[in-house]
Amino acid sequence: MKDFNAKLVKDQVVEWIRDWFDKNGKGCNAVIGISGGKDSSVVAALCAEALGKDRVIGVTMPNGVQADIADSMHLINHLGIQHCSVNIGDTYKTLMAAVEEQLGTLDKEVSNQTIINMPPRLRMTTLYAISQSMNGRVANTCNLSEDWVGYSTRYGDAAGDFSPLGGLVVREVIAIGKELGLPIELVEKTPSDGLCGKTDEDNLGFTYAALDHYIRTGECDDPKTKALIDDKHAKNLFKLKPIPHFEYNA
Amino acid sequence: MKDFNAKLVKDQVVEWIRDWFDKNGKGCNAVIGISGGKDSSVVAALCAEALGKDRVIGVTMPNGVQADIADSMHLINHLGIQHCSVNIGDTYKTLMAAVEEQLGTLDKEVSNQTIINMPPRLRMTTLYAISQSMNGRVANTCNLSEDWVGYSTRYGDAAGDFSPLGGLVVREVIAIGKELGLPIELVEKTPSDGLCGKTDEDNLGFTYAALDHYIRTGECDDPKTKALIDDKHAKNLFKLKPIPHFEYNA
Repeated sequence: MKDFNAKLVKDQVVEWIRDWFDKNGKGCNAVIGISGGKDSSVVAALCAEALGKDRVIGVTMPNGVQADIADSMHLINHLGIQHCSVNIGDTYKTLMAAVEEQLGTLDKEVSNQTIINMPPRLRMTTLYAISQSMNGRVANTCNLSEDWVGYSTRYGDAAGDFSPLGGLVVREVIAIGKELGLPIELVEKTPSDGLCGKTDEDNLGFTYAALDHYIRTGECDDPKTKALIDDKHAKNLFKLKPIPHFEYNA
Repeated sequence: MKDFNAKLVKDQVVEWIRDWFDKNGKGCNAVIGISGGKDSSVVAALCAEALGKDRVIGVTMPNGVQADIADSMHLINHLGIQHCSVNIGDTYKTLMAAVEEQLGTLDKEVSNQTIINMPPRLRMTTLYAISQSMNGRVANTCNLSEDWVGYSTRYGDAAGDFSPLGGLVVREVIAIGKELGLPIELVEKTPSDGLCGKTDEDNLGFTYAALDHYIRTGECDDPKTKALIDDKHAKNLFKLKPIPHFEYNA
């Protein structure tokens, strides 16, 4: 595995973002959901360098009270980007109550998957509402490691118009975050969905270090981990592909 | 242009749906947002034939009061499928108020695009909430004519897990609807987004007949219409593709 040149790649991503906006939204603003984690922090910083901080809008979207909202504000103040905060708490409660009541008429209950995936989808809806009112383009903040095993909500945080980190594994994103001079506590924060108290690595069943190494080299020391990664990769590939449709040969 | 054999193609789509569920959700239910228009009617009927009516769940999602809700119920009763109704009106009002207030802090107003696209995204969120609580798979109900010119909301009604009509133009969908014996007033209903009083054809600036003919033959009598279709096609192709991302050659 060759060395990762964080400075060089950071410059390449910045150039890619500039080029993408030139072709797909000249003069548009980058709209980014700021979670307080490393991915949204790095994306916001890359967009600020590529477009200028006045063309970057950070949107915080707490669901009621969010424990680490201070991290989001720290990032926003550090970069000096535009900011607004849409609390999705009331929206979540309203929709969940309507869904729960209707599921009841069919003798069903709200599943854990629904509870986990509804907030990211409401955040996507919110981000696009802001973006479409501010001449924006929505940044996707998923990285390659997450995408590899489908660790995202389809049509939720997996949505977006452009993806600066979709080709970079976690440790490369961290290296770029350090190169960008971001607050180290944000860059090295333990990734978590903030839902169940578990870290991403707890949920996945393997470390990002093992996953990154496997993606970049094809090697995995532990056969069980390899099998688990391969299984998640196969099961989640559909998330990155167009919706399958019936093909008629006219 | 060869003749369209509605009976044959209908059978092929039914087989394709059965096969897709066998491979991607054995025993799962099809969850379909029922708008009262021809596309969702035809998809629901195809799924009922493919999976049996007990494995089809029709979800109506009015935004407050919906003028043509009776058409949706007519279809649901005609097919005898399971049904629930989630009114997204309160959710829409709650989220829109939160967005509007925050846009105000940035001296911006809610755009018309936001008003048009928020309800389909809330409906997507609702459909997945129902689906993930009922062992479901969400049907996409877009047809090829709409997809060709991007006449849908990305991450809204353009979402879904499988797309029975994504390879069929409007007149082929109508022919299949007749073959399925659906109420003729639903199959031949003038397509409209139900938002502004305009029909789809008003919004697009050309007829589905002209669009269908162009897609299937490459021919278009009117150069202005051809240019308009080509322009919309080019501008909206991105909606059918994966999110562009920076490529790093490790």
